[in-house]
Amino acid sequence: MKPIKAAPLSRSPIGLFDSGVGGLTVLKSLALEFPQESFIYFGDTARLPYGNKSPEIIRKYTEQALELLSSRGVKASVIACNTASSAYMNPSYNEIPVYNVIGPSAELALQISRTKRLGLLATRATVASLAYERAIHQINPEALVFPVACPLFVPLAEEGLTQDPITNLIAYRYISPILTHNIDTVILGCTHYPLLSDAIQKVVGNSVTLIASGPAVAERLKFDLEGFTDLPKADSQRTIEIYCSDLSTHFQDLARRILSPLEITQFELV
Amino acid sequence: MKPIKAAPLSRSPIGLFDSGVGGLTVLKSLALEFPQESFIYFGDTARLPYGNKSPEIIRKYTEQALELLSSRGVKASVIACNTASSAYMNPSYNEIPVYNVIGPSAELALQISRTKRLGLLATRATVASLAYERAIHQINPEALVFPVACPLFVPLAEEGLTQDPITNLIAYRYISPILTHNIDTVILGCTHYPLLSDAIQKVVGNSVTLIASGPAVAERLKFDLEGFTDLPKADSQRTIEIYCSDLSTHFQDLARRILSPLEITQFELV
Repeated sequence: MKPIKAAPLSRSPIGLFDSGVGGLTVLKSLALEFPQESFIYFGDTARLPYGNKSPEIIRKYTEQALELLSSRGVKASVIACNTASSAYMNPSYNEIPVYNVIGPSAELALQISRTKRLGLLATRATVASLAYERAIHQINPEALVFPVACPLFVPLAEEGLTQDPITNLIAYRYISPILTHNIDTVILGCTHYPLLSDAIQKVVGNSVTLIASGPAVAERLKFDLEGFTDLPKADSQRTIEIYCSDLSTHFQDLARRILSPLEITQFELV
Repeated sequence: MKPIKAAPLSRSPIGLFDSGVGGLTVLKSLALEFPQESFIYFGDTARLPYGNKSPEIIRKYTEQALELLSSRGVKASVIACNTASSAYMNPSYNEIPVYNVIGPSAELALQISRTKRLGLLATRATVASLAYERAIHQINPEALVFPVACPLFVPLAEEGLTQDPITNLIAYRYISPILTHNIDTVILGCTHYPLLSDAIQKVVGNSVTLIASGPAVAERLKFDLEGFTDLPKADSQRTIEIYCSDLSTHFQDLARRILSPLEITQFELV
C-alpha cells in the first residue's frame, strides 16, 4: 500500500465510491473515526447494482469513478464496494493511493478468528472473483473460506427491509448451509450487508463475529494517516459531499437514513 | 400509432429492448405469435435495472437503445420495458414506429375487466409516472386503478426464484392490501412479472385475470401488420438475435431458460 501523499495534500478530502448506497456504511465508519476529515462520496446510481455484472464492465466503471474522485482533488480513494474492489486491486490511480475493502477485511477477519474458518457473504461477482480467498491465503495459507453468494441482500437493503421477517428468511436460506463448517467469523463481503447485520447475526448466532468493510478500512487508514502532522485540525469544519450519477429522492432518503446522525453537506448530480 | 413502414422494410426484423431479461417475456410472446418474423433484442444489462432510476436518465437510455435498434434496420421497435415505456411515449423514433407496452396492456385490461377495477403491479418508477392511469383513463375515465410498487419482484425473477415460498410471501405482502377493492383484473406492469405469475395468481386467486405485456403487444402488432403483403414468408428461416451491453453467463442462462423452446440465433455484446 502506497503511503498517503505528502503534506500539501493532507488537508484534502478522502474520496469514496460505490455503485449505490452500500458504500455509505464505509463512509459512516470513516466519518465517525476521523471527525476532522472531509469526505467526497460518489454513488454510481445510474448504473447500479454492480453485483451481477462482468469483471470487465465493473473495472471500466471503477476507473471512471476513480477519475472523477481524482479530478475533485482527493488525497486517497476508497473503493467502498466489494464487487468493484475485486475487479480493481491496483494500489493507486493517477498517483493517488486507492484503498480497496477486501485486503483490510481479510486482515481483520484473520486477526479475530481463532479457528481460521471464515464464512464469506458477498455478491455473485465478488464470490466468482476469488479475491477474498487470494487476500486471505496471502496472509494465512491454512485458513479455510466458505463463500456464499447472496444476490437478494442488496435489493433488500436498498428497499430498507433491514428489520423484516422476509429478510430473516432469506438470510437463513443463504447462510444455513455453511453453518455446519464451524466458522467463527463471517466477512460481510458487500458494503450493503452491514445494513442487514441484525438478520445475519440471528442466523449465525452470537458466537460468530461479523466483519464489516467500514471498520476494517478505518483501521487501515488510521495506521496510514498516523504521523502526518498536516492533517485537518480538530476545530476545522469538515464537509461530507455526496455525488451521484442519478439523483432520486429514494436515494437521498436512504443516504440520510444510513448516515444519520452525520450531516450531509451537499447532494449533487454529476 | 403510426403504421408499419412500406413494403421494402416489411421483411426487416422487429426490434425490442429492455434493461435486462424481463423484455424476453415480450419477445417470447411475439416470436410465438409471429413465427415467420425475425427479431433483434437489446438488453441494457450494463445499466440494469431501470425500476428505481429517475425519468430523465431512463429517457436517455431509452433513446440510446432506440438508436441502436434503428441502426440495425428494424421495421418497428418495441419498448419491452414498462419503466422505459412510461418515460418515452412518442409513437416513433427516427421515423420507425415505436410500440410501448403500456397502451396495449391498458387496452387489453379494459377489454377483459367487467368491474373496471384494475390492480396494477409495477416498479416504483412506473407507478410514480402515472402512465397506466393516463392510458386507462383515456379509454375509460370511470375505471379505477389500484397501483402497487413491487420493487423486489425484478431481483426475485432475475434470481430465478419463480417457484419459491419466499416469492409467495413477498407477493402476498405486496398484493394483499389491494385485494379488498374488488379488482377482477391485474396488469403485470413490468415485463419481468410474468415470470412470477404463479406466485401472483396464488395471491389474487383464480377469479382475477392477469394481463401480461407480451400478449397485449402481440394483439396490437397483429392488427398493425395485417394487410401487409410483403411480410416474411412462412418458409423463411427467421432469426432471433440478442444483443446486450454486458454479457454474463448468468444473463445467457436466464435468457435461454425464459425463451425456451425458442432457439436463440446469436448472443452479442455491443
